[in-house]
Formats: sequence, structure tokens, C-alpha cells
Amino acid sequence: MHDLLVKNGAILTMDRHGTQIEKGSVLISEGRIAWCGPEKDQPADGASRELDAGGGLILPGLINSHTHAAMTLLRGLADDLPLETWLTDHIFPAEQNLTAEAVYWGSMLAALEMIRNGVTSFCDMYLFAPQAARAADQAGLRAVIGEVIYDFPSPSYGELENGFALTRELIRNYKDHPRITGAVMPHATYTCSPPLLEKAGQICGDLDADMNIHLAETKVETQGIVEKYGKRPLEHLKGLGLVNNRLWIDHGVDLNHQEIELLAEAGVRVAHCPESNMKLASGVAPLDEMLARGVAVGLGTDGCASNNDLDLLGEMDSCAKLHKAHKLDPTAAPAEKVLSLATSLGGRVFGHDDLGRIEPGALADLIVVDTDTPHMTPMYNPVSQLIYVARGSDVRHTVCHGKVLMQDRKFTELDEAEITAKALEYAVGLRG
Amino acid sequence: MHDLLVKNGAILTMDRHGTQIEKGSVLISEGRIAWCGPEKDQPADGASRELDAGGGLILPGLINSHTHAAMTLLRGLADDLPLETWLTDHIFPAEQNLTAEAVYWGSMLAALEMIRNGVTSFCDMYLFAPQAARAADQAGLRAVIGEVIYDFPSPSYGELENGFALTRELIRNYKDHPRITGAVMPHATYTCSPPLLEKAGQICGDLDADMNIHLAETKVETQGIVEKYGKRPLEHLKGLGLVNNRLWIDHGVDLNHQEIELLAEAGVRVAHCPESNMKLASGVAPLDEMLARGVAVGLGTDGCASNNDLDLLGEMDSCAKLHKAHKLDPTAAPAEKVLSLATSLGGRVFGHDDLGRIEPGALADLIVVDTDTPHMTPMYNPVSQLIYVARGSDVRHTVCHGKVLMQDRKFTELDEAEITAKALEYAVGLRG
Ligand SMILES: [Zn+2]
Ligand SMILES: [Zn+2]
Repeated sequence: MHDLLVKNGAILTMDRHGTQIEKGSVLISEGRIAWCGPEKDQPADGASRELDAGGGLILPGLINSHTHAAMTLLRGLADDLPLETWLTDHIFPAEQNLTAEAVYWGSMLAALEMIRNGVTSFCDMYLFAPQAARAADQAGLRAVIGEVIYDFPSPSYGELENGFALTRELIRNYKDHPRITGAVMPHATYTCSPPLLEKAGQICGDLDADMNIHLAETKVETQGIVEKYGKRPLEHLKGLGLVNNRLWIDHGVDLNHQEIELLAEAGVRVAHCPESNMKLASGVAPLDEMLARGVAVGLGTDGCASNNDLDLLGEMDSCAKLHKAHKLDPTAAPAEKVLSLATSLGGRVFGHDDLGRIEPGALADLIVVDTDTPHMTPMYNPVSQLIYVARGSDVRHTVCHGKVLMQDRKFTELDEAEITAKALEYAVGLRG
Repeated sequence: MHDLLVKNGAILTMDRHGTQIEKGSVLISEGRIAWCGPEKDQPADGASRELDAGGGLILPGLINSHTHAAMTLLRGLADDLPLETWLTDHIFPAEQNLTAEAVYWGSMLAALEMIRNGVTSFCDMYLFAPQAARAADQAGLRAVIGEVIYDFPSPSYGELENGFALTRELIRNYKDHPRITGAVMPHATYTCSPPLLEKAGQICGDLDADMNIHLAETKVETQGIVEKYGKRPLEHLKGLGLVNNRLWIDHGVDLNHQEIELLAEAGVRVAHCPESNMKLASGVAPLDEMLARGVAVGLGTDGCASNNDLDLLGEMDSCAKLHKAHKLDPTAAPAEKVLSLATSLGGRVFGHDDLGRIEPGALADLIVVDTDTPHMTPMYNPVSQLIYVARGSDVRHTVCHGKVLMQDRKFTELDEAEITAKALEYAVGLRG
């Protein structure tokens, strides 16, 4: 007897052969895919619970490789402003008012939005990280979580030493958790001194943890680091001994050919954030070049202060279109490639070969997308439809680690009304 | 006694002062706004029908300035291909199989999608235009509709002379229709000879009708016209006496400063199609420059073969982000401006000063957008929220010309299941 049967859908497995199964089903046991295949071949042993895909698409749960979940509280606080004004006059002052409880409820609000949009994994860098971890755990989501660390005192942990201690504790606390992993998260090279970064690298080595950092987001950043250290940001990190397969960079916009080569050789992963990069006018990441060189690239929404949502279906659409526009090439960033960023390749960014695909043995994170609506009709190609038409609102069921988190668009575990009301209350508090 | 009261929402009037009403209501009589204002000031005379906005946003119905509605049937038929291959190997062969009934059902499918996404007006250029007009009429939508005309025989009308006759008839038939208007629609300067265009201009003059044409979509188009006629496309049209306030161009991507000046002076309107331009890698239209010069610019989705949806909320998001990315300027295409493209400015593109705004005397086209969901929480700025967060699926009610077309996401006039099934049947037929 299995734990869950998901039946009556077309399966986009996202396995290495790109297998699609026209009318298939998936059996899940103990958080992993036990079997998937055509319905007619389904083993007879059954499951204690069934989910009907209603003829829709079954695909891996979407993977958000970079966000700041609790920034839902700052969604649309300020837009359309020069970066400096936006940060200094709006975002930073609001963040000074953050509390542990605010981050918890903001992260829970993010969890509601992610589950509704079919996102089952996220990588989170923010203040009061233990609260984000607590929220992800309660929400049933998969997450890599780290406390953001920088040179100045933090509204969360205060002095830097406490930030390191907090980071170590977070990583240790979740060492054996099936869904939550702690990581070391220095903010960026322009906010973290070389000693800070070296110390961060040491924690990674000590605790066998990943390092996640904003890097090469804009040319202005590059220029500043070159002026300060005589090296471009990635070179600077390399000089500190931090460019290795523990490293996971966010944005990776201003990268030259040599740097892409270095990322590939060192096994560095990249979270590509097209909508944030567009909205903040940061530039366009060399996506096709990174993929051609074999770099593992995932897709990130960034925080809701700069995007302003957590909808990876919309993010994929923007990704596919942005690169075509930027290169004046309609074949750039094709739909299949873009879907892999949020699924199988995204799994590799998270360090798992068994995440972001539907195949026996893989982690049982999957979603069902409705296709029997006017805007999804006709459907010549399910992958094209997902990228260019589907929206977060088309997600019908969300399953993470074998647990049903949303069924027929209703949350099975979380109290939507309570969380929304609480988050709103804390959002109001941030305006000071 | 009024026909309809829409109550309990925040109103974004989109009037010339940008008036927003925090808790307001709207009274409608005979297809026009009779009154709008704060709920507490509401006249006592009441209405025979009421719509509850549920605390959401009330705003003008969205205006799609350029589409090919029945191309819903070709949604996602082929993507990510070079333009030539896409057109020649996929789109044109399918269009050879088009029939009047296919266009009717394809347009009805588009109507379902538009109503669901809060679109109440659209400008449609396609084959078998009388069927699109019939569909728009039955669906209760507002539309400007024209038969696409070009030098070669048409799968719809056959020889060119019939195309002119059909166009005249269409314009005459809908002369006094409250919602549907016929127009003259030559396809483009590269598919229409100078004599065709002159004849088209003559019909405009004879029948006091607008001319809608694809123009300046790509640099390749410009180059071809320069080679053929020694002039850029807009100059070429000017030489034929067609650049005047009847003219409405689609795309307007490859325009120089002089041409923008000419558009402004002549009162030419422009349908800006950011997502189509991105997906087909056509280039980026000089939106801020056109707006600065006072050109009336609307927003168009283009057809579903090249977008692949009819969601203007998504289109506005893409528009706001594309221009920021293109100009490396986060203040480009600000949310308020972008919203006006799909409402008040869009109304001017349609030739109406009383369309796309909620004020006494204006045409009663309005929508209600839900805001009490996790992804719309918190809401610091309703305009930011509409552009950067809301999706077509957040539209709760749709009203066109005073008639409720969708209430609580349910169609009040159309049979969703029948239309979807019929459209699917005809879509299958197009693959030959
Ligand atoms: Zn970030
Ligand atoms: Zn078009």
C-alpha cells in the first residue's frame, strides 16, 4: 500500500530523456516517487489516498532558487524608483522595524503564495532566518535557508559574531531534516568584507554547508568591487578561496566569458532572476551562454519588494521572452530549457539529482496544472502551454515530500485567513 | 432607477486627474456611467441590479488595441522558431484551412478568455471578419473589427475586389451599433501594394472609417520597404496620403525621432505589443518617447499564435518591466503610465474620449479585481499591485456597456463548455 496515488494526467517527467507520458499516474511512498508510468501499467498495490489530476498536467513541483520570502510584507511598498532611492528611502527603513514574528508571518504568507503557485522548494536569504525555517517546516515546503550576514549590525542578530553563531546553529539544527537545510549567506561582496567572507567560507567547510551570495547583479557592483579590490566580484571571491562547488550565486548578470568558464569548471550554481533584473534595470544575465557551458542555472523570483510576486510560471514566461528580446533571436531561451530551470536543473542548483524530476526514487514534489479552461485551449504542446500561457492560478494540486499541501486550490494544512490577516497586521507595523 | 450598481470597492477612475476613491460605488444607466463617487454620497435612487466588489478594485474594462482573436485556435502551435520558419511552415499552412465557422468559434473562445481576463474592448484584424464581429456582438464586447487585406488571394474572400466590398459592407452594417465598429485593415506595407493602400484610404474617406495596419514591426521590415520604395514604412504611407488621424498602427517598433514627431503631429495612434515583440524578437518600441511627445499609445496582445494569451494584466507587467530592462532605467514605463495604456489612453486609441475611464457620461465598461488573496496582500499601492502582481485570474466581475458579462468568475451570457469544445474541434481541423 502506497501513501498517495496521483492519477489521470499527462506527466512531464523532466527526466534526462524528457519523457512525457500521455495518460499516466504516479505512486508515492515515504516522501519519494515509488512508481510512475502509463495508467494502464499501474501496479495493483494501490494507495491510501488518491488525487485526481482531472486530465491536466502532472509535473515536478517548481523550484525557486532565490528569494527573500518575508519580503512579501514589503510587496509594492515602492516601485519605479532609482535603485538608491528605493533601497535607502523605502526598503532599509522598513526593514529596521522587522521583528522575528514579522518574518515568521511574512514567510507564512509567502508559503501560501508559493503553494498556490505550485512552488515546492525555495532558497531563502533573509533576516531572522530561524523564523523562515520554522515557517517552511510548518508549511510542508522544501527550503534552503540562511541568515543574511553583512558588515554592519543587523536588525536581527545585532553584532556580526552573533550572525556567525546563528548560522552555525541553524545549519546544525536542520542537519537531518528531510526538507529544510541551513546554509551560509553573506549578502554580497560590496556589503561583506574579505574577513567576513573568509569566516563564512570556514563555516561552510566546517559544517559541509553551501554558501549563497548575491553576485554580479549589475555593472555598477562590478565597478565598485574593481575600484575597491582591483578585481571583478567573482575573481575577488576566487582570491578568497570561495569559488568551489559549495558556491551558489544569485543573479550572475554581469559575467564575462572567462567568468562563465570559471563557474562551469568550479561547479558553481547560479540563480537567474529575470523579473527582478528587469524591474530593477540590472541588466540581462548570459543565460544561453551559461547553459551552453553546462552551468547549473535555476530560476529565482527574488523578493516581493522587487518583483512583486512569487509566481514561477510567470517568471518562466518572462525568462523565455526576455532573452529573445535581448538577443533579437526568437530561438533564444526555448520553452523546454526554461522549464528545466524551474525543475530538473533547479534541483541540481539545490544540490540534488533526485529533485525536480518525476522518476522512481526521486523526491515526491509534484504539482497538477489544469488545462481544461478557455485560456489553456487548445494545447498543441504542453511545455509551450506551461511557459507561455499558464499562470500560478492554474495550479490545482501541490504535493511536497509526498504530502498534499493544496488540493483543488484549497490549503490542506494552513489557515489562509489567519495567515493573511496576521501578515497584514505585521506589514502595517513595518511602515513605522 | 438605474440599471446597475457596482458597490463596495476602491475605484481607480483613470480620469484626467487620476482620481482614486477609497470606498466607492458606480451607478450605470443605458450603457453609460450615471454616477460614481464615495459610497456615503451615493444618490438614493438605487438600481435594479447590484454587483458587490467585495472590497476589491473597480477600474475601467481593459482595452486590447491589437489582436487577431481567432488565432486562439493556433495558440502554441509552434514557438521558439525563426520568424520565417514559424510563418511559412506553421502559421500560413494552418490558416489555409480556416473557415468562417472556425473563425467564429475561435473568436468566441477569445471572448471567453478576454472576459475572464477583464478585457472589454479589442481591435481585431483577421480573416472572415464578419464572424469576429458576430462573435464580439454576441459576447457583449466592444470591438473595432476589420478584414485583413493583402495583395494575394485570401482564404476568406478570394480576390482583392471582394475584400474591399466585404470591408465596405462590414463598416456599413455596424455603422449604428453601440459596441461594434468596422474599420479598413490592410495587413502591412510589405504585403500591400501602393494601389491597394490608396484604395483602402479611399474607403476610409468614403465611409469615415479608421485604418489599422501593422507598421514598423522590425528593422527587417524597414529595410525591405526602403529597398522597394526608397522610403521607410511611415514615409511610404505618408507619400500615399495615409498618415492622418484615421491611422492606427500596430507595433511601431522601428521608429526614429522624426517619425515619432510625425505620428504626434498627424494624430496617428499606436498599438504597442510588448510580449509579441519580445517573443518574436522584433525589437523594443520607443514607448516613453512616444508618450512624451503626446502620441496616443494603447496596449495590444497581438494574436495567440505569438504571445500566447489575451491577458492584458500580464501584458502590462511585461510592458513595465521590458522598458526598464531595455533602457537600464528602473523609472521607465512606470505603473501609472502603463495602466493608462490599457484604459484611458487605450480609449483614445479607439477614438473615444469617453472610453477607458470611470466618470459620469463615460461608456460603462468596468471590471472588479479581487484583492483579498495571499498574493495580493499587503496592498500599499493599488496601481502597483495591478501592474506587478495581479493576473487575469484575479478579475472577479466584468461589465461591458452596462451589461454584466462575468459575475464571480462565472459567465452570465456565454456557454463556456460548448464554446471551448467547439473551438477545440475547429482547432483540430486546422492542422489539416
Ligand atoms: Zn535578492
Ligand atoms: Zn498582429
